[in-house]
Amino acid sequence: MVKKPVPDATRRSEKSRRAIYDAALALVAEVGYPKTTIEGIAARAGVGKQTIYRWWPSKADVLLEAFLDLGEQAARQAGQVPYEIPDTGDLAADLKAVLRATVDELLDPRFEAPSRALAAEGLVNEQLSREFVAKLLEPQLQLYVNRLRAAQATGAVRPDVDPRIALELFVSPLAQRWLQRTAPITYAYTDTLVDYALYGLAPR
Amino acid sequence: MVKKPVPDATRRSEKSRRAIYDAALALVAEVGYPKTTIEGIAARAGVGKQTIYRWWPSKADVLLEAFLDLGEQAARQAGQVPYEIPDTGDLAADLKAVLRATVDELLDPRFEAPSRALAAEGLVNEQLSREFVAKLLEPQLQLYVNRLRAAQATGAVRPDVDPRIALELFVSPLAQRWLQRTAPITYAYTDTLVDYALYGLAPR
Repeated sequence: MVKKPVPDATRRSEKSRRAIYDAALALVAEVGYPKTTIEGIAARAGVGKQTIYRWWPSKADVLLEAFLDLGEQAARQAGQVPYEIPDTGDLAADLKAVLRATVDELLDPRFEAPSRALAAEGLVNEQLSREFVAKLLEPQLQLYVNRLRAAQATGAVRPDVDPRIALELFVSPLAQRWLQRTAPITYAYTDTLVDYALYGLAPR
Repeated sequence: MVKKPVPDATRRSEKSRRAIYDAALALVAEVGYPKTTIEGIAARAGVGKQTIYRWWPSKADVLLEAFLDLGEQAARQAGQVPYEIPDTGDLAADLKAVLRATVDELLDPRFEAPSRALAAEGLVNEQLSREFVAKLLEPQLQLYVNRLRAAQATGAVRPDVDPRIALELFVSPLAQRWLQRTAPITYAYTDTLVDYALYGLAPR
């Protein structure tokens, strides 16, 4: 029979887990994904590598959870837990608010370097890319799907619009500017994206 | 006084140039940007490395021109030289046609592997990224700016719309799906993006 963990052990293991996340994010930012190893993460976190293997089967899994945790911390700081897109009844205002929070996150140095390193690897590593899209990116995009469906229910979005494509009109431009550094990202920019997407470029 | 090159020498140098482009694109696709070297390109192209240094100061410059050439070849094959977005007077049809051609190019294996390798390096190498955006990506985006400005002149696009932001509503979603493999890219998808961008998600 497995003993119930005592509070001290729980605290120790939470502390190790956080140290491992921090080490994994720092390493991938500094040396890139291919050179990040379980051994390297363990050494930097000050834990044995068996501690890591006990919890995660691979470095991809450690990084996936480290990113999920980073996103949750950011959401908690922004008072957005449980994480969902607000529904005040004003779709444009709600989308602008969540995109402004995303701008803040993308410009946060704690987030930027590890995210770039991981995205760079995803471009050339299809398996990693598909795992991260399925577990990390797509669940975030589904929050927009939910908000757009609610807007369809109230008539703020046309009923024939596919929400999974529609969200890309304001999410993808921000992603591309950040990923490829094509132009600056600002609140004014994301506000404009929302207005153009909702009301269209053609005259009304 | 420099002798005018004789036709044979011109042909030889055109052949070397093409061999160097092919070698550069193949190498970056196979081993990635950091491990691609001028020496490696020269060896694969069957030329001396001084031949490469005579024409280009760095591997980034070789790759930049190799990509420009690849894009020109694709445009020539598609009958789009000089390269500009057609203006038939039907903005939606013109944008759909050019995005369908872009889908074809993104799914072409000759284009895909080197482009991914270069984009991956751009994510973590800000200097390279800025050079490629300035010389390669932004000039392509300006073609959309020109077409949207023409549409503003005829009243097909609202006069208060910023064309440089507006183009991102249909260009960036395609780029993100391709870069991050978030979902398939098809003609139906890009057609839908154009319709949503022009007419908006909100009811008219």
